[in-house]
Amino acid sequence: MRSRVDAVLDEFFGSRLHGAGAEAEGTFDLAEDVRDYVTRGGKRLRPMMCVVGRHAGGKSAVSDVVLRTAASLELFHAFTLIHDDVMDRSDLRRGAPTVHRAVAARHPGHPAREALGTGAAIVAGDLALAWSDELLHTAGLSPAELAAVLPVIDVMRTEVVHGQYLDLTTRVNVRGGVAAALRTARYKTAKYTFERPLHLGAALAGAGEGLRAALSAFALPAGEAFQLRDDLLGVFGASERTGKPVLDDLRQAKPTVLPALGYQRADIAQRLVLDTLTGRPELDEHGAERVRRVLRETGAAEAVEDMIRLRRRQALQALADAALPAPAAEAARQLLHGVVERTA
Amino acid sequence: MRSRVDAVLDEFFGSRLHGAGAEAEGTFDLAEDVRDYVTRGGKRLRPMMCVVGRHAGGKSAVSDVVLRTAASLELFHAFTLIHDDVMDRSDLRRGAPTVHRAVAARHPGHPAREALGTGAAIVAGDLALAWSDELLHTAGLSPAELAAVLPVIDVMRTEVVHGQYLDLTTRVNVRGGVAAALRTARYKTAKYTFERPLHLGAALAGAGEGLRAALSAFALPAGEAFQLRDDLLGVFGASERTGKPVLDDLRQAKPTVLPALGYQRADIAQRLVLDTLTGRPELDEHGAERVRRVLRETGAAEAVEDMIRLRRRQALQALADAALPAPAAEAARQLLHGVVERTA
Repeated sequence: MRSRVDAVLDEFFGSRLHGAGAEAEGTFDLAEDVRDYVTRGGKRLRPMMCVVGRHAGGKSAVSDVVLRTAASLELFHAFTLIHDDVMDRSDLRRGAPTVHRAVAARHPGHPAREALGTGAAIVAGDLALAWSDELLHTAGLSPAELAAVLPVIDVMRTEVVHGQYLDLTTRVNVRGGVAAALRTARYKTAKYTFERPLHLGAALAGAGEGLRAALSAFALPAGEAFQLRDDLLGVFGASERTGKPVLDDLRQAKPTVLPALGYQRADIAQRLVLDTLTGRPELDEHGAERVRRVLRETGAAEAVEDMIRLRRRQALQALADAALPAPAAEAARQLLHGVVERTA
Repeated sequence: MRSRVDAVLDEFFGSRLHGAGAEAEGTFDLAEDVRDYVTRGGKRLRPMMCVVGRHAGGKSAVSDVVLRTAASLELFHAFTLIHDDVMDRSDLRRGAPTVHRAVAARHPGHPAREALGTGAAIVAGDLALAWSDELLHTAGLSPAELAAVLPVIDVMRTEVVHGQYLDLTTRVNVRGGVAAALRTARYKTAKYTFERPLHLGAALAGAGEGLRAALSAFALPAGEAFQLRDDLLGVFGASERTGKPVLDDLRQAKPTVLPALGYQRADIAQRLVLDTLTGRPELDEHGAERVRRVLRETGAAEAVEDMIRLRRRQALQALADAALPAPAAEAARQLLHGVVERTA
């Protein structure tokens, strides 16, 4: 399935990059940035969820129309990541420089390289989003299918925006707590990685509210488990596997569940470690190891593992309750297993 | 017409801000930022162009469906402006602080206020774009109408992105010249302010390629004239009328036609003035007056006026050639007159 999604994306990029359009007029390199960003990595999780959602609705054949619709979610994902990278000031994504870094590096003599990189990355994200819509609009959907999927896309977009804003503003109160972190995870990740792609696929199968609710009952705990695993990998993961700098989450003091729990459970000495070391761009590997020790010794890391296990059980139970067609349920189970057990 | 567009926008904002959705969970203030940005100013030029395009296609009744479709362009415009403000690091728009400034001001104690403001403005622009699509998708278009307008929207989006990127990268070469500045104006302004809104309206009227080509022949010179007037106002305009800081364009050394012409025509002493004074954040009113004098004495300012006059004539000629229904042609003429003669 992954290779079929990639083939759709390759064909789309080919048409945009080798077309006779505006790309010829000097924005070719930005289009290449977006293409490279999408093609050099990613799990294609959202397109696969979309296909599972359609299976769940009783339609198992994966036509080119379905594939293109599903693949458009990968371009949407690129939009969110590229803008996220700007907001987080990240240097590395999928093992290569982020867009704002790549553009700045291409213009070594520019008097305002940083601002140029930031601006170009904002525009690159906008391009990925425009392409996402274009791929969806030209997927070959019937008017009725298009009318069914557009509301899903609209709500997904608004939710992602809200999640990103929650992510930004909860940093105002770094100790915002577990509830705030989970709310951000729900909007920023669970909904657009699991719930809405499943709904999109279900809409393609002509499914109604009942199936959507059943899919949500699976998707929300699954999505939170995915994000909680991501939080653990952001602190304890290996950079060469995740493709992201290993110290970024700690340097930015990302307001995730893991540090929130750590802070809640820490004694005075441990709080001092968290307060003085996280949220500082100059944090080094030695300091990071001290933070990791606090997150382990307070039991925060294990508590997050417990939360993942609980959500996984909830998701599996919801799957059993939903009584989906067997292949759809099995695919959902496998995707769930893959995302909670992953190391990258 | 303007008040009818505003009524549509007000109703849309009301439904989003007072709905029971995610807004209740803490992102209310971002949604308000977007609403305030849209409602506190703007010429509603793009919605009006859309209505003119539909008239041009022979349909003169302006139904609520047409109005909502047209009004969605105003939210699209807000998206481009909000992101532009971030890229330009502008402080003021429509007489009030830009989104990134407003958000930063709301969080005086935040350790990274600037980054928070930038991030929030990126997200606010994304929200305006998501809302633009939502308003379009829920405008009440028939499936056939939706299928006709989506390709216009898609191409408009890609063109705007290209224009913004051209705008960013031509600053690499500040003396990129008149041709580069005109190309940027075409992609960044003329197409999405005039050509594509007209095409959108024409698509709503079921018009074909012939009418679109005729509308393009009017729209491109008209749009360039609009941008050239904007360039002049950015240097010679009064801040209390334009709602933008009067020194921004010079402080940023915006690569527009006006300074490109000035530089081309300047002698060594005049070039020194341009080189040493523009592109510097510390430029004051006294320095700006010296730059303005050079732009007048070289004849650059008058040359831009000539370019505006030429394009206005071309646009009027294209309008005459197009043989549109009389009310549509008259409305297009009035809009053209308004934008090239404006002082704000």
